[in-house]
Amino acid sequence: MSAEEIAELTARLRRLEDREEIRSLIAGYGRAVDDRDWESLTRQYTVDAQFESAGGRSVGVEAIIDYYRERTADYVASYHYPHSIEITFIDDDSATGLVCAHAELTIGGDTVMVALRYHDDYRRVDGGWRFQERTVHLLYVLKLSDLPTEFASRLRVRWPGTAPAVAHIGADVASGRTVDPR
Amino acid sequence: MSAEEIAELTARLRRLEDREEIRSLIAGYGRAVDDRDWESLTRQYTVDAQFESAGGRSVGVEAIIDYYRERTADYVASYHYPHSIEITFIDDDSATGLVCAHAELTIGGDTVMVALRYHDDYRRVDGGWRFQERTVHLLYVLKLSDLPTEFASRLRVRWPGTAPAVAHIGADVASGRTVDPR
Amino acid sequence: MSAEEIAELTARLRRLEDREEIRSLIAGYGRAVDDRDWESLTRQYTVDAQFESAGGRSVGVEAIIDYYRERTADYVASYHYPHSIEITFIDDDSATGLVCAHAELTIGGDTVMVALRYHDDYRRVDGGWRFQERTVHLLYVLKLSDLPTEFASRLRVRWPGTAPAVAHIGADVASGRTVDPR
Repeated sequence: MSAEEIAELTARLRRLEDREEIRSLIAGYGRAVDDRDWESLTRQYTVDAQFESAGGRSVGVEAIIDYYRERTADYVASYHYPHSIEITFIDDDSATGLVCAHAELTIGGDTVMVALRYHDDYRRVDGGWRFQERTVHLLYVLKLSDLPTEFASRLRVRWPGTAPAVAHIGADVASGRTVDPR
Repeated sequence: MSAEEIAELTARLRRLEDREEIRSLIAGYGRAVDDRDWESLTRQYTVDAQFESAGGRSVGVEAIIDYYRERTADYVASYHYPHSIEITFIDDDSATGLVCAHAELTIGGDTVMVALRYHDDYRRVDGGWRFQERTVHLLYVLKLSDLPTEFASRLRVRWPGTAPAVAHIGADVASGRTVDPR
Repeated sequence: MSAEEIAELTARLRRLEDREEIRSLIAGYGRAVDDRDWESLTRQYTVDAQFESAGGRSVGVEAIIDYYRERTADYVASYHYPHSIEITFIDDDSATGLVCAHAELTIGGDTVMVALRYHDDYRRVDGGWRFQERTVHLLYVLKLSDLPTEFASRLRVRWPGTAPAVAHIGADVASGRTVDPR
């Protein structure tokens, strides 16, 4: 076996291991948010990471953690869980990802369901994978009590206490197909 | 290291990579359906693929895409997401899979929840994995407003506008245990 | 390539294969419970395994299966599905896991939603991975009809016919933050 062949095999093996590590990063993220485990969450982001969600864009891991602290102060409990994960490598130390997910939040006594996609950038830093950027694209944000009838509305991003907004994603959004706002 | 040993290691590595590719195929499927991205969906099926779902069996990728087009025209938005994935290889270029999943559909203003299992055949074609066959086994199809009480019914496959039908799967279906149809 | 290098590569490959096998074990578990497939479930546990859930701790695979039989006799149908899976290896033949999941149960005509984490120990026995220990940590157990308003309650573990109990996990439980029990 030539040195080249060995190097190629090893690189392929490393890539598979990287996928597993990124998958663990994504799994650990939900737990860290739900447990308000800021120490773990801090380790999951690069120092200059960016996070974009309902509250706008936070730049730098400290600002991101501050954002989570403030945001989750309104929740009693929460459950963030990923479904499918698609990872594409850019080079040995960076990759992009698309994660379909749900979050169940308790806001003001109501259970609020969030259906979303995370658009991620991952970077390997000091031997471990971290989020370089997470951007949330919303399919809906609805009280569970409204979900039976309001998923069909384009104005289905309804954070309690804010004006209903159009979803970021969804076939109707993509197509521009008109749906009566309810 | 003998040539045989190298070949065996490489084959094992290839199989792991194949699992990742099939997982990406399954993840991409949900996104393609939800985005009505027929181009991607077309690439996910083999030319002579078969898809069997609520509307019967479609044969050939063109018929399959036509079916999706027609079917999803009734939905405003949808969310298809897989949970667990079990893959069994038949040979280097074919495998079977069992995917537990949910779909959230908007039909006629109602949010309809579908709990299902996909029974899949995968084939490697031109270097990439595709669906050769997808068959949907339904656990339930219920308006979310009915889900709190009707999962216990055997007649829990209730596509809006059609007569309630018995589920394909479920302990009660398997055992023949009688449950009062509601 | 030295014998040592080959051994290391092979060990890394084996570990990745082990991850896939454990993932399949976790996927197969949900199906086995939902299908009341006791034969498969028996093969998924070690002989001296332990399972701890709502009904207390069962020791030994026979006691575990008896527990499932008895417990699921109250359900008409059920759907157990995992979300994220985090696996940590202790040595070549043992690992721990943390699995975020949901279960949908039908109890007395009601659909009951369970949000939970499995804390697992896995062992390789006779060449295959099995559960050595599964412990269920509950985030909530609520009738779907109560979920819109009761996730915010600390007394959100509400098995039908039993007194409401405090959840095992959740930010409020971890922090001791007082939430009015409803």
